[in-house]
Amino acid sequence: MNRRKFFRNGSLAALGSALINPLDVFGKSQDFDLSGRNKKAKNIIFLVSDGMSTGTLNMADLFLNRKFGKGSNWIQLYKDNRVSRALMDTASASSIVTDSSAGSSSWGGGVRVPNGSLNVGANGETYLPILQKFKKAGKMAGCVTTVPITHATPAGFCVNSKSRNSQEDIAAQYLDLGFDIMMGGGNQYFASDKRKDKKDMYAAYASKGYQVVKTRAEMMAASLDKPVIGVFADDALPYYVDRNNDADLKNSVPSLAEMAQKAIDRMKNNPKGFVLQIESGKVDWAAHANDIGGLINDQIEFDEAIKIAIEFAEKDKETLVIITTDHGNANPGIIYGKEANANFDSIQKYTRTNEWILNAIHADSSVAQVREIIDAANGGTISEDDARAVLSYYDGLHKEDGGLYNYKKLPFKAFSEMQKKSNSVGWISMDHSADYVELAMFGPGSELLKPFVKNTDLHYLMLQAAEVENKF
Amino acid sequence: MNRRKFFRNGSLAALGSALINPLDVFGKSQDFDLSGRNKKAKNIIFLVSDGMSTGTLNMADLFLNRKFGKGSNWIQLYKDNRVSRALMDTASASSIVTDSSAGSSSWGGGVRVPNGSLNVGANGETYLPILQKFKKAGKMAGCVTTVPITHATPAGFCVNSKSRNSQEDIAAQYLDLGFDIMMGGGNQYFASDKRKDKKDMYAAYASKGYQVVKTRAEMMAASLDKPVIGVFADDALPYYVDRNNDADLKNSVPSLAEMAQKAIDRMKNNPKGFVLQIESGKVDWAAHANDIGGLINDQIEFDEAIKIAIEFAEKDKETLVIITTDHGNANPGIIYGKEANANFDSIQKYTRTNEWILNAIHADSSVAQVREIIDAANGGTISEDDARAVLSYYDGLHKEDGGLYNYKKLPFKAFSEMQKKSNSVGWISMDHSADYVELAMFGPGSELLKPFVKNTDLHYLMLQAAEVENKF
Repeated sequence: MNRRKFFRNGSLAALGSALINPLDVFGKSQDFDLSGRNKKAKNIIFLVSDGMSTGTLNMADLFLNRKFGKGSNWIQLYKDNRVSRALMDTASASSIVTDSSAGSSSWGGGVRVPNGSLNVGANGETYLPILQKFKKAGKMAGCVTTVPITHATPAGFCVNSKSRNSQEDIAAQYLDLGFDIMMGGGNQYFASDKRKDKKDMYAAYASKGYQVVKTRAEMMAASLDKPVIGVFADDALPYYVDRNNDADLKNSVPSLAEMAQKAIDRMKNNPKGFVLQIESGKVDWAAHANDIGGLINDQIEFDEAIKIAIEFAEKDKETLVIITTDHGNANPGIIYGKEANANFDSIQKYTRTNEWILNAIHADSSVAQVREIIDAANGGTISEDDARAVLSYYDGLHKEDGGLYNYKKLPFKAFSEMQKKSNSVGWISMDHSADYVELAMFGPGSELLKPFVKNTDLHYLMLQAAEVENKF
Repeated sequence: MNRRKFFRNGSLAALGSALINPLDVFGKSQDFDLSGRNKKAKNIIFLVSDGMSTGTLNMADLFLNRKFGKGSNWIQLYKDNRVSRALMDTASASSIVTDSSAGSSSWGGGVRVPNGSLNVGANGETYLPILQKFKKAGKMAGCVTTVPITHATPAGFCVNSKSRNSQEDIAAQYLDLGFDIMMGGGNQYFASDKRKDKKDMYAAYASKGYQVVKTRAEMMAASLDKPVIGVFADDALPYYVDRNNDADLKNSVPSLAEMAQKAIDRMKNNPKGFVLQIESGKVDWAAHANDIGGLINDQIEFDEAIKIAIEFAEKDKETLVIITTDHGNANPGIIYGKEANANFDSIQKYTRTNEWILNAIHADSSVAQVREIIDAANGGTISEDDARAVLSYYDGLHKEDGGLYNYKKLPFKAFSEMQKKSNSVGWISMDHSADYVELAMFGPGSELLKPFVKNTDLHYLMLQAAEVENKF
C-alpha cells in the first residue's frame, strides 16, 4: 500500500464511513488490502525452498525474466506490494549454520534444537510439533515435498526424533499421527523389501483407510474424502529439469505444484481449516552439488507452487501463506564479467542437471563421448582437456569427496568449476551458509510479521494468526 | 507497526480525535510512527555500503552480536520496526552485473548507463546528476567516503563523465559545481606533484573559498560556515581495522562516522535542507580481495555511520535516510561445519587486514617470519606448508592475477583459501555479483518505497520525497 497516497487521497472517502459508523474506518483495511489481513487465518500454507540463498531467488527471477519476459511469482508479489517481508536468522541450538532438521524444528516446535535433531533438545526435551498442535485444534494437516516425505523439513513439522536419519521410524510415526495428506519420495522407507523391519508400510496405511498413490495418475484420481499417502520415487523425486525432459518421468511423477493443488483440494473443505507444508527440497540438494541447472529449475518448480498457494489464498481470504527457506546454501551468484549476460543465458539451454550428466559418464566413456553427453545436456560442451579431467574422476582412484548427497562421489565440484567458465555462476562451498534469509507472508496474519525475525518466531506467529491457544 | 494491534486496540482512542476533527485521524500517523513519514523530506542522507552481499550484512551483525552482545544498527532498525525495506535490482545498461559507476549513476541520474560510465549513456546522452538537481533546488550537497572522493560512487551522484577513471577531471568538476562538503581519499587527484596537468587543486579550491583539510584534527576544527574539501590519503583511506590498530592512523584519519557527522553539521542549518551521500567504499575493496577482516570491520564502520545518520534524522524529523548497497560482491558466507561458530569467532582476533599482512611479507621473508606476521595479525597462524605456499608468490614469477584493486598482484585469493580452513568463510569469486540487494529507508518519504525496486527508481523517489519537481 502507498500509505502517503492513502492518507492524502483516500482520507475523505474513508472518513465518510467513519462518520456513519465510527468503527468502519478500521474495518475498512480490506479496501486497500485485498489479502484479508487482520482477520483470523483459518488455513496456513507454509512454502519452503530448502537451502535457498539470496542468489538462488535472484537467479530464478532473472532466468525467467530473460527467457520469458516475466519474472518469478515470488518477486511479482513484491512488485505488486502484496506481502509482508522479513529477514530471518536461521541459526540452530548448536550452530550459527543450521541443518534442515534443526531449521524445520525451529518452526515446527518453536525451540532451537541441535543440528540433526527433530524437535528434541540437547538433553532429550521434546517439543510438540506444530502439525500435531493444529491437528488437536481440529485442523487437517499435511506435507508435500520433492524429497522423501520422511525427510528433515516435513518431519520437523510433524514428529519428535533424536535423529533426522530415522526415516523408517518417521514413516511409521506419520501413520500413527494420522496426517491427512503426505506426498513426496521415499519408497525405501515404506516398502517391505527395503525396510529393515520388512514391514509393509503401504499395507499399514491402507488398512488405516489411506489411499496409497504411487504415480501422478493415481494421485490425480485419488478421492478427496480419504487421507492420502503418495510416494513417487525410491529416494527423492527427479530434478524438475530432468523430469520435464523425460516423457516417462513427466507422466509418472507429479510436479510440486500438482501435489500442492491436490493437498489443498483434499483439505480445503475441512470446517476448521488446514495447515500444509510445501517443500522444494532439491533446491538444497542442487546447491550441495553446485548444480546450477538443477538449482534454477527446481526453484522455478517451487515458484509454480507459490502460484497455486496464492491463487487459493486470494479466493479463500482466510489463508496465511508463508514463503521462505530454512537456510542459505552455497551462496551462488552471477559473477561480473564482459560475458556475464550471455553466459548466464546459456543456462537456458541446459536440458539436464549435472547429476544426470555425471551419471551418464562411465569409466569406459571416451573423451569424445563425454563431450557429446555434455553437449546434449547443456547445449554446448567443454574442452577436450576439461573432458579428460572429468573422466579422470571415474578411474576408481580419484573420486571427489563431494557433499552430503554425493554418495557416488561424482565430480560435481570439478564439473561446476568448468561450467563456471561458460555460465559465470560461482559458489562459496558445497554446504549451508549462515546468511539471513528472505521471508514473505500473504494474507491474514501477515501483519504480525516484523522485519527481522528468528526462525522460532514463526511457530508462535502461526498459532497467533490462527488464534490457536498454545496450550497442549 | 503492529497494524492488527493498532486496529483492534487503538481504534477508540484514535477515533476520539476523528470525531473532534475528522482529518486528525490521518494526521495521527505520527502517533504510531515516530520517523515522520508522510511528510516532505527536507534532507536526504544516502548511505552506501559499496559491494555488500547479503552475507556481509549478516556477518557484521553476527560478529557484533557474538563479540559485544548487541548486533548492528542496521538490523536493529528492523528489530525495532522503524524502516521500510526493499530488494533492489542492481543491473546496469550493459550487464546484469553492474560496476560501481553505473550503479551510482542509476541513482544519480535515474537512467541505467553502461558499466564504467558516470551518467553518460551508450550514445553519449547525459543525465543531470541528482546532487546538481538538488543544488539547483537550493539544497546544500556533499559526499563523504573512505575511498577517493573522486571515485565512482560519489562521482555518480555529482558528475557526467564517459569514464569513471577520469578522477583528475572529476576533482576539477567538483570545484566548478561548488559542492558544500566533499571528504575522503584521493590526494593523487588533487596534488600538483601527482596530477598530470601539475595543477594544484587544493590552491584552486582554497581560492574559491573552500577550507582544505588533510587530517582528522583539521577536519574537526573546520568552520561550519564555509565549504570543505577533505582529503586524508593518497588513494583510499586505510581499512578500519588497520586504522584502529595504528595510533598514528587513528589520530590522523577520521572515521566514516566522524566525516558523516561533520558533513551533517556543515549543512544542517541550510534553510532549504541538504543531501549527503555517505559511502563505505572499502567494503567493496575487501570483497574484491576476499579479505574478511577488512570486510567485516569496514561494514562495522559503515554501521557506525548509520547511527550518526539515524540519530540526526530522529531529532530532525525532516530527513529521509536511505541505507543500501550498489551491488553484491563475492557473496561471502559462513559455511556449515562442526567448528563454524568457533571458526567464525576467530575473526574477532584479527587486528589487521590481509592487505596489511600480504604487504608485510617480502620476497626475502623466512617461513618463520611469515608465520609470525600472520600470528601477530590474526591471533593464530597458518601451517608451515601454507606459509611456504604464500611465500612462493613473492618470487617475482608466481604472482596472483588478483582483482581490480590488487595492483601489486599479492596472493589474496590463495591466502583467503588458507584462512577458510580456520574461519569457515567462503567466497564465490573476487568480483561483483548480480544478487538483488537489501535496501532500507527511514523517515519522510520512506513510505514511498515498494518492496521490489530497480536501482533507478531511487532517483525519482528522492525527488518525490523532497517534493522537488524533476524539471531542469
